[in-house]
Formats: sequence, structure tokens, C-alpha cells
Amino acid sequence: MSWNTFGRVLRFTTWGESHGPALGAVLDGCPPGIALSEADIQPFMDARRPGQSKFTTQRQEPDQVKILSGVFEGKTTGTPISLMIENVDQRSKDYSEVANAYRPGHADYAYDAKYGFRDYRGGGRSSARETAARVAAGGVARLIMPDVTITAYVSQIGTDEIDRDQADFAEIGNNPFFCPDPAAAKRWEQLVDDARKAGSSLGAVVECVATGVPAGWGAPVYAKLDADLAAGMMSINAVKGVEIGDGFGAAQLSGEQNADPMREAEDGSGPEFGANHAGGISGGISTGQPVVCRVAFKPTSSILTPVDTIGRDGKNTRIRTKGRHDPCVGIRGAPVVEAMMALVLADHKMLHRAQCG
Amino acid sequence: MSWNTFGRVLRFTTWGESHGPALGAVLDGCPPGIALSEADIQPFMDARRPGQSKFTTQRQEPDQVKILSGVFEGKTTGTPISLMIENVDQRSKDYSEVANAYRPGHADYAYDAKYGFRDYRGGGRSSARETAARVAAGGVARLIMPDVTITAYVSQIGTDEIDRDQADFAEIGNNPFFCPDPAAAKRWEQLVDDARKAGSSLGAVVECVATGVPAGWGAPVYAKLDADLAAGMMSINAVKGVEIGDGFGAAQLSGEQNADPMREAEDGSGPEFGANHAGGISGGISTGQPVVCRVAFKPTSSILTPVDTIGRDGKNTRIRTKGRHDPCVGIRGAPVVEAMMALVLADHKMLHRAQCG
Amino acid sequence: MSWNTFGRVLRFTTWGESHGPALGAVLDGCPPGIALSEADIQPFMDARRPGQSKFTTQRQEPDQVKILSGVFEGKTTGTPISLMIENVDQRSKDYSEVANAYRPGHADYAYDAKYGFRDYRGGGRSSARETAARVAAGGVARLIMPDVTITAYVSQIGTDEIDRDQADFAEIGNNPFFCPDPAAAKRWEQLVDDARKAGSSLGAVVECVATGVPAGWGAPVYAKLDADLAAGMMSINAVKGVEIGDGFGAAQLSGEQNADPMREAEDGSGPEFGANHAGGISGGISTGQPVVCRVAFKPTSSILTPVDTIGRDGKNTRIRTKGRHDPCVGIRGAPVVEAMMALVLADHKMLHRAQCG
Amino acid sequence: MSWNTFGRVLRFTTWGESHGPALGAVLDGCPPGIALSEADIQPFMDARRPGQSKFTTQRQEPDQVKILSGVFEGKTTGTPISLMIENVDQRSKDYSEVANAYRPGHADYAYDAKYGFRDYRGGGRSSARETAARVAAGGVARLIMPDVTITAYVSQIGTDEIDRDQADFAEIGNNPFFCPDPAAAKRWEQLVDDARKAGSSLGAVVECVATGVPAGWGAPVYAKLDADLAAGMMSINAVKGVEIGDGFGAAQLSGEQNADPMREAEDGSGPEFGANHAGGISGGISTGQPVVCRVAFKPTSSILTPVDTIGRDGKNTRIRTKGRHDPCVGIRGAPVVEAMMALVLADHKMLHRAQCG
Repeated sequence: MSWNTFGRVLRFTTWGESHGPALGAVLDGCPPGIALSEADIQPFMDARRPGQSKFTTQRQEPDQVKILSGVFEGKTTGTPISLMIENVDQRSKDYSEVANAYRPGHADYAYDAKYGFRDYRGGGRSSARETAARVAAGGVARLIMPDVTITAYVSQIGTDEIDRDQADFAEIGNNPFFCPDPAAAKRWEQLVDDARKAGSSLGAVVECVATGVPAGWGAPVYAKLDADLAAGMMSINAVKGVEIGDGFGAAQLSGEQNADPMREAEDGSGPEFGANHAGGISGGISTGQPVVCRVAFKPTSSILTPVDTIGRDGKNTRIRTKGRHDPCVGIRGAPVVEAMMALVLADHKMLHRAQCG
Repeated sequence: MSWNTFGRVLRFTTWGESHGPALGAVLDGCPPGIALSEADIQPFMDARRPGQSKFTTQRQEPDQVKILSGVFEGKTTGTPISLMIENVDQRSKDYSEVANAYRPGHADYAYDAKYGFRDYRGGGRSSARETAARVAAGGVARLIMPDVTITAYVSQIGTDEIDRDQADFAEIGNNPFFCPDPAAAKRWEQLVDDARKAGSSLGAVVECVATGVPAGWGAPVYAKLDADLAAGMMSINAVKGVEIGDGFGAAQLSGEQNADPMREAEDGSGPEFGANHAGGISGGISTGQPVVCRVAFKPTSSILTPVDTIGRDGKNTRIRTKGRHDPCVGIRGAPVVEAMMALVLADHKMLHRAQCG
Repeated sequence: MSWNTFGRVLRFTTWGESHGPALGAVLDGCPPGIALSEADIQPFMDARRPGQSKFTTQRQEPDQVKILSGVFEGKTTGTPISLMIENVDQRSKDYSEVANAYRPGHADYAYDAKYGFRDYRGGGRSSARETAARVAAGGVARLIMPDVTITAYVSQIGTDEIDRDQADFAEIGNNPFFCPDPAAAKRWEQLVDDARKAGSSLGAVVECVATGVPAGWGAPVYAKLDADLAAGMMSINAVKGVEIGDGFGAAQLSGEQNADPMREAEDGSGPEFGANHAGGISGGISTGQPVVCRVAFKPTSSILTPVDTIGRDGKNTRIRTKGRHDPCVGIRGAPVVEAMMALVLADHKMLHRAQCG
Repeated sequence: MSWNTFGRVLRFTTWGESHGPALGAVLDGCPPGIALSEADIQPFMDARRPGQSKFTTQRQEPDQVKILSGVFEGKTTGTPISLMIENVDQRSKDYSEVANAYRPGHADYAYDAKYGFRDYRGGGRSSARETAARVAAGGVARLIMPDVTITAYVSQIGTDEIDRDQADFAEIGNNPFFCPDPAAAKRWEQLVDDARKAGSSLGAVVECVATGVPAGWGAPVYAKLDADLAAGMMSINAVKGVEIGDGFGAAQLSGEQNADPMREAEDGSGPEFGANHAGGISGGISTGQPVVCRVAFKPTSSILTPVDTIGRDGKNTRIRTKGRHDPCVGIRGAPVVEAMMALVLADHKMLHRAQCG
């Protein structure tokens, strides 16, 4: 059981609200002796940090991570690593209207229905600021598996997809969209800016690839690697779909088309696969191929167009969501997806070691 | 932590292999005082049971469920409910070739890589027979929420989708495909039979709708209702994708299009929603709308066409998978998806009660 | 969260009632490749089995364990091991009076208060027959740590303690009391027989020693080895106290008296300790010394002397507990304590490996 | 699975080291709508706080608790409550000698054996300062069950016990020992001061009584209320034994002596019990009687008398533990035991509600 905790043996708990004094994560079970400082984590925070281009929310948060425990003389001790990020740029006044009416698409109504009231400032606990905490934890998780490389990128905004033949991971850092296709990135500037100016918003798809994962991580049946990835990804704000490998596309294939044939590698280094429809996971266990995951983000629910809704009093009203919002929340989702992939994989590395030595 | 256990407060553990003496589930945490007999569960077993038409595997399993504990004088006692299903129609000789070569798309290679060896008879633990155990557990879970109605159906086989305007849930039981569109069901007879005769296979999409779920079930952040649904569905054999509500479709919408406006119900019974793009879940918490989930099944990996692979010795070989297989494993996935929905929802009903009284 | 499950990475779930058709355990997470057959477990079942002397209940249960899953070609596969023990000698008529009145000291009243009703046959789920299932699981756990030797014995019945100077573990199997002191065993024959004939009962203390546990098992803070031992032992029927090392005796010592000094072993094999007041655990982590635990069993609550009580109707009445009972339930507690020690230690061996490689 | 997390549905995770910048707890699952401010928690922090008399360590820590999340407009929101306590009075120089040699009775050797190195400043994570975090969490847990009253007190220091006939809970706050017997408190002044001056230390026993717990909390079999209490208490630093009700004393009783007879209350308010040998728990479930627990604390391991030990290099040496220590760590254990009782009971109140409505 866990409410705000994720993971099996490598476990992290996040806490904090959008407009509270701080938010954070406690990462528990990290192996001892790993070199770790705040500088190892900060680059991942910076990648997710808001306010860096006009294509994301203008909230200015330095998102400086502090390590409060679990590290001694520059190395992890094996005890809980407490990571804290202070909130700096809260403007609670922006959200006053939200207190009395439910923003469609937001968690407002559901929280009130569940808890009887809610912290309405910036969405409180339902804010995507929570993901800053998991990005911090993910920064540590990566260090547990130095041989694994994880790359997430935006493959689609709205209906505009990248051209996979033109995709180059080296390009991901060269544009504000985590986009591996420079031509698409160029198009998206206009697309996202138009949405921003119109007070509208766009959905997106984030893809994530992990290489260097050996065969054997994951465990049947309810600790399947893909089941954990699905849970982790679906727990990210605004995510509505998760695919492993070909995902829904696989439903349209025949068995012959979907097979990933194997053959002996010439250098004897293990099997080579002729395809990777499976996304690197069979029977819930990694196969040694790249682990591939796709994640659908809905458009940001905060839009300037007034929408019909009801108030806390149950009466009809309309609401338009002012404030500073991402026109496409999926963009900043890329570093979050990357972090979740890291957290799930590191957990399964350790879980595998527990059982199989 | 759990290997073969699922759930937060209502928890079930499954055990058993395709060709062992039996398989089963232990359902723990069930509320006391619920009328329960084997007859309450058996209809769900029968829906999933193989061998009922030429469109599913010809393995003949009565799948009679036995209740071994947790029920006294016809009512649940609040203690673990042990459910057992004996395997009857194992033909281990069918699988001898599999012992020495890895079937692409199956878990064979991954299991060997993880465990060093595997029970190769019928896939052992990786067999979809495991899902019989969760269907049994799901039969109990439904009784915990008598006001909730759950319906799963096949909406697509291969590239052939139902016509939603023609869909009628009353039709689902009238064809061997759990198909709500009679015209599609008619087409699928030919489609699936062709695949069967060719020794090929087809993928499918299963949709599931739960009505009667009140607002307030689910819990932020890592116990989100949709995160648990994603994990549960992705843990089903052959599943490669999960969507909530519009899923990947939502990524293509604008914020205006994706909004689910609310208004006051005329009878004062709470809000009415103008749409359900969210699939009944916001911020991980149910909204009172129908909970809607879509699940992608890959085509059955067992096909008669020989595929390149390697043997246990690492050497190149080819394999064609003889034996009795479902030409479209997604069809019998419908009752399994329904059971998982029931198990997740009942768990969250109880979890909500724990916190919010 | 778990209701009837114990363990962190090596987890087992037990199910079943005293008078149901069977009871069992599902042991999950066991490492693969361990040679295992029913013959490896049965000796531990036999040690706990009732009806073997006049000093235990005369219920005749063969307690034959069956392995239903998780083993293939004589080795564990890494998947759940389902262990089942059929109930043979239920005499439900013996318990009819219990249905309507609460036996003091038994769980009757508490179960009714919690669940609204209860399986009154033999105590249902509250029966000590549950411990058969954990003894079965414990038989497997031992195989995970072949270098660890676990020995439990009865050190005290009523007020009569063994003479530790006369204790010899080789004697434990030579008497029906698991007693290492032959003189005490001789005295206890009279003591226990007198209680039996009088329809009375006696309490007991069981001690357990595990040797061969390396330093480093256990984890701060809430996964301390001693915390898990305390939970495991206290969950055994009739247990009311748990001590590690000197236990309550340590409260009476000064810091000087309680110190366990260390010195270099002459053969360089690691530290030697000058004493073991700590019972082999410091800060929740094993030190390499023998792990020592003491467990207090209350006298069997079932006695022939009538005791004041109330009925289900809340009215005053008196009850005397007929039926077949252990005059000293602590005696058969020894194999159960041994099993719990094995289960906790094997779990921590694996947990340590998860984190520290 | 959990490393530094405790609880089933009401869960808390603690983090932090003795000499790090801060320590804290994240309490998760707290019901919404409970009035909560730092002032509700601080009195419990103050009771445990060091430096308040010459009978406890002279380390001066204000132990001011800060609430960083989970409270809005003065009420709990149902989301994680992050509690932080800054460390103020670390004197790391006091502990330099400890870096290179193992203090017998401390966790030094075990931590090094497990993790390869350790934070040696003040014991790092193994320091009893961790208990400040659970006292903070316990302060919140109490508010979940306003009808339950929990009282812990020291009943024994060294071999000197209180006179139960003279015990008066109103006296507990009138002396620096949490002692309900004024005459004993008077004697202990001399006893503890002598130990302090001699650089020695004393063990102690803490008793804890909870009244107002209704019948029905706790759950068979591995979620027994007493099993959770045992785990929680044994996880407290320096604890070596736990008893429920008569504990080891029950092992010396006959069944007749140990019976807790029941009769109808004259006012019809439920059963009255003629005794409480069971300590308010039968079959792992509360009976409605006071829940009674006893906890043994070993003497503080830090003493000025040099003790034989080995260094990190494995070579023989001697160590005397300078620094500021409690001469009897059990005294300040009383508020910690009280907090653990609160945390376990509140958890079980919620767990019971989950299953039984």
C-alpha cells in the first residue's frame, strides 16, 4: 500500500503542493557508496524547470534541489535521501476564482468530492509541480545504473508528428521542445506560439527509449516491468495513455508481422533481434533490446476560453483559467517521463538482484 | 512490494502454471458478510473459458472454481478467500520442442535470461492461464460494489473496428467475440477463421466501461485510479497499451475540444458532464462519470509460420509453434479486462473508505 | 499493506481455517534453481504435527504438504510456490456450544466485534492451525540460506525453566517437549500430564538461535531485523512477548554489563565478541553473532473449568471448553518459531542483496 | 516493502541523520479535514526534547517542528504531511574518534559491515534522534482518534520498579522521569545521577496504556494489532523486548489464572472484563479493554569506561565514548513509545474502516 510512494525496493515518496513553502521527495533503498551531490541532480531539474522559453509557463522557479540526508562525504550511505525544492514564485492571488468554481479537466471537482475541500492554490497537490520531486529522485536513480542510457523526447504535438527518418537524439537539446527532428521543432514554434497567444492549449506524445538494459529485469506477474512503467507514466499529470513498443499499433498486426525474430550475434555477444515490436519487454521481463515507451499527454486544461461549469454551491457558472500555464504541458513532460523510466528501471535492477543474486 | 500480488487494501495473489496441477488466487481483505458461493464466480470463469468456439483455443478446461477458505455459512468472513482451479487438459507433449528453442514474442528467452531455466510446458507461469485466477478474484470483487456495472467488449480485431453508432451492449453475449456491434461480429467470423486456418493470428482492442462509480475514488499521487488501472491492464498477457478516456486521441485535441464541461443536473443529483474525454478520472480520482479504459492486445505470438530464433545453446534455428492456441488472444481478454477493472475499483472503494470514512 | 501476507521481498500469504477443506501458503519471490520437493518440507510439518504424544492435542492430522506450483524438474522456478495442507480430522460437532458464547482468552468476542459474525468451528481463522502453513513456507525459506542453522526449543513451561548448563541441542529431538535439558523434560512429563488431566493448561517460553547469519542483514529503520522478528513472532497464536538477546533482562543491566566487547579473531576471520547481550543484532542489523530470540506463549485458553462469559446475545453465561486441545500450546510453538525465524532471515538475506549487491 | 516507512494505510516515512541539516517525517494517508497546526505537535516534541534536565543528554535541540505540506486553511487536506525538524546543536568534533573504531553496543560495526562505510557523526541514521520524527508524526496520529487516550510512563529503571499501588498518571508530568510513582521518581534522581556522574548508564522499562480503543481494531493474521505494536516498538533505538498485557508473565500462569472473564455490563454498554491479562488484544484484534504494552530499553551503550573493541582496520583497540549522552535512554523513550502506540492505533482505525465500513 502506498498513497504517495512508488517503487518496490527502491522507493520514493513525494510531498508538497504547488503553493506551499516547498516540495520534495524521500528516496529510500538507494545502494550505498554512490557518489552523489546536488550537482548530479540539478541538470535534470533545469531541463524540466518552467520559465525557460515562451513555450512554457512563465512561473519563475529556480528549482534548486537540496539534499537533506542520506549522503556523507559525497557518497550515498544507504539511508533515505531527502530531496527538497523550495517554491519561490507562488502568486496565490492568481487562483482566487478557482476557489469557488471547478475548472473542467482539472482535479478540482474530484478533490472536493473526495476530501470535502481542497487547496485551490495552483491546484495544490494535483499540480504538475509534483513532478519536480520525481525528477529529482530520478536523477539519483540514474546513478544506480551507469550502463543504462535513457532518452525521452516529444514525438508529436497536436496532430503534428516528427519524421522518424529525420530524428537525431543529438538535436533534442537544441530546441525548447525536446524534439529530435529539427524541422518539426521549427514547425512547433509557430504551432505552440499560436496556441499560447490564443489562450488555447495542445496535447503531445512523449517517447522514451532506454538502452543498456540487460535481459532479465522485471518479474511476473504483477511486478512486470511494463506494468510498473504503465503505472508510473499514468501517474504523471495529464497523461491519458501508455504504450510499450508498438502499443496500439500491435493490435493491428498479424502474428507474423509482430514477431521479433532472433539470431546469434556474430561476435557471440548474445542474441540479435530482427525487430523490436515488443519494446524490449516480453512476459514483463526485459529482453536486452531497448525498452521503448510512448506516453500521451492531453492538452493543458487551463485555457482562456470560458467553459461551462458549476461552482462549489452546485450552481451553473462559467470559468476561464487565468494565470501562467504551459500551452502544451507535454513538452515539459519529457524530463518527467525520463525520470520515471529511470526510477522504474533502477528499482527493477535491484529487485532482480534480490531474487536472482 | 509484491511479485504476484495486486491491490492496495483489497489484495489478491495468484499462483500456478499452465501445466501444473492447478492454479489459484488468494483474495485478501474482502469485507465480511457478503453472500458468496462458487456459483457467483463461475459465470465469469465460463465467459473466459477456452474451447467454447472455433475462434479460441481448443484446450478443454472446465475451469471449475473452488472456494477453499474465507466463506462460512454462505458469507465472506473477512479472512482470505482461497480460490482454486484445477488444470485438466494439459498435453505436455505439445510443447517439447519449445524446451530447446525460444519462441519469438513469447517470454521464453526473457525467463531463461532471468531465472536460468524455465517451466516450458505451455509457457509455465507466463501462460495466459494465469488470468483465470484473476477472473475468479474479480468475480468476488464485483460483489463488493453492487452499484457498479462493468462491461468489457472487443472494439477492434486487426484493423476492423466496430461502428459505435451500431453498438449495443445487449449484443455482447450474442456472439463469440464479446462484440457489441452485430455487423462487426459477423465480419470477424471470417476474419478470425481465416487467421486460424492460416496458422496466423490477430491483435485486438478491448474497451471497458464502468458505470455507477461515485466521484471520489482514487488517490493522489501514486495511488491514482488510472495508474492502478494502467498497471493492472498492462499486467495482462499480450497487452501492449492502455488508454483512459480519449487516451492517445486526447494528444491531438485542443484544450477547448478536450474540456468536459459541467452543469447542474435538473434533478439536483449532482453535476452533469457535457462530455467524457477524461474517461471518468481527473487528477487520479473518479468524477462520477463512467470510467472508460481501452486496452491493446498484440496478436498471439504462437503462429505456424516458422520464425528465425535461437536455441538454448545460442545457435540459430527456426521454430513454428504447434499446439492449441487462440488465433486472437484479445477476444478472451475481454472478461479478463472486466475482472481487472472490478478488482481495481473495489480496492479503491475500500481505500477511499479508509481515508475518508 | 498486507492482511495475511508477511515479508518484504520474500513474501508469503497464508489462507485457510481450522475446519475448512484445507489451508495453505503461497510463497512468493523465492530464488530460482533451488532443489525442492515435498520431502524437504515434510519433516518440519511432522515436528509441528498434532497428535504425536499425549502432551499435545489428539486431533489427528497427517499434515501432508502438497506443492501445487513454482517447482519444475525438481527446482524452484522463481514463481509463486503454492503449498497446500488438507484438513482431515475436523470434528465440527465439538464446537457447537462456542457458536453462541465467547470463550475468554480466545478471539471469539473480538472477531464478532470486528466482522459481525465468525467461523466458530475450531476458531476458524484464529486457530493455531494457521501456523502449519507458515511452517511449510519456513521449510522452503531454510533452503535459501544453507549456511544458516536455526534451532528453537522450549526453555520454560509454567514456572519450571531448563538448567542452561545442562542444555544440549542434540537432546531436543529426544523428548516430546523440544527440550534441550533431559532432566527438565523428565519433570515436564508430570507437569504437563497433570495439567492435561485437570483440564487446565500451561504457558511456556520458546527460545530460538540462528547461527551462520553474516553481519549486515537487516535495514534501518522500519525494516530492522529485530522489528521483523518481533512482528513475526507476535503474530503467532498465543504469543504475548518477544525478546531479542537479553530482552527485559537488559533493562536491569548497566552499560558496562551490557557491552559486547570485540576483539580481533586470531585466525583473522573477523571480530570475536566477548558476549552476546545484543542477541546478534545492533541497530537492527545482524552483527555476525548468533541471532537469539525468546518468545512467551500464554497458557492455552481452552480449559475445562467453567469461566464467566457472555453470549452472542450479550447475556451472562458460563463456558467450559470441551474438545481436543494442547495443554501447553507453547510446546508445538517451537517449530513455528523456528519457521518464522527462517522466513525473516531469508527475507533479509534477499533484501540485503537487493541494496548492497 | 519499506525501508524507512511504517504503517499500512496511515503510513509515515522518516529521514535524516543525527548531524545532518535536518530530519523529518512524511505522514501519508491522513484523513482530510482535521484541524492541525504546529502547535498541536510541539508539546509532544517538547516532552521528548533533550537537554531539559541533568538526567538526559545536554545536547540542546529546540526540536521545532515545521509543517511543509498537507495542511491548508488550518486543516489536513488528505495529502502527505511533511514534517521537518532542523538540527541545531551538532558538535561533530565530539565524534571523531568513533570514525575509526567500533563502539560496542552501537550500530557502528553492523553499519560498516552492511554498507561498507557509515556516517559516524552521532551515529548518523542509527541515532535516536530519528525518534523525533516519529514523535512528530505521532502528534498528528492522535488527532485521528480523539476518543483514544494514550499514556506512556517509565515503570522501572535498572532494577528499581515503581509501586503500582502508588502509581498515579497525574504524577507523570511532575518529574523528569515520566514516572507515575512519586516515591520512585525521588529514588531515581539519585540512581540516574550516580550513573551519569560515573559515566555509566542504566536500562529501563516503559509501559504504555491506551484507553478508548473500541473492540475490532487489528486484523488477522499478519496485520495483527499486537504484531504491529511489536514491530513498531522493537524498531525504537535500544529496545530489546516487547510485551502485550502480561507478556512473559503469562507464560507462568495456568489457563484459569490467565482467563479474562466477561460479564454483561449493568448499563448494557457491552461486556465488562474481570481482568486484562490479554492487554486488550485477542487474536490480534482489540477487545475494547485498555491496550497495554511494555517495552524494555537496554542501557545506553555510550559509557565512559573503556571497552575492548576493534578498529576499522580490524585491529584490537579500546574505546570510551565521550560526548553528550543520556545516562538512561529509556526515559526519553516514553514519549516515543506513546507516539508509536498512536501511529499503530490510528493506522488500524483506518484499516478497520477500509474493510468493515
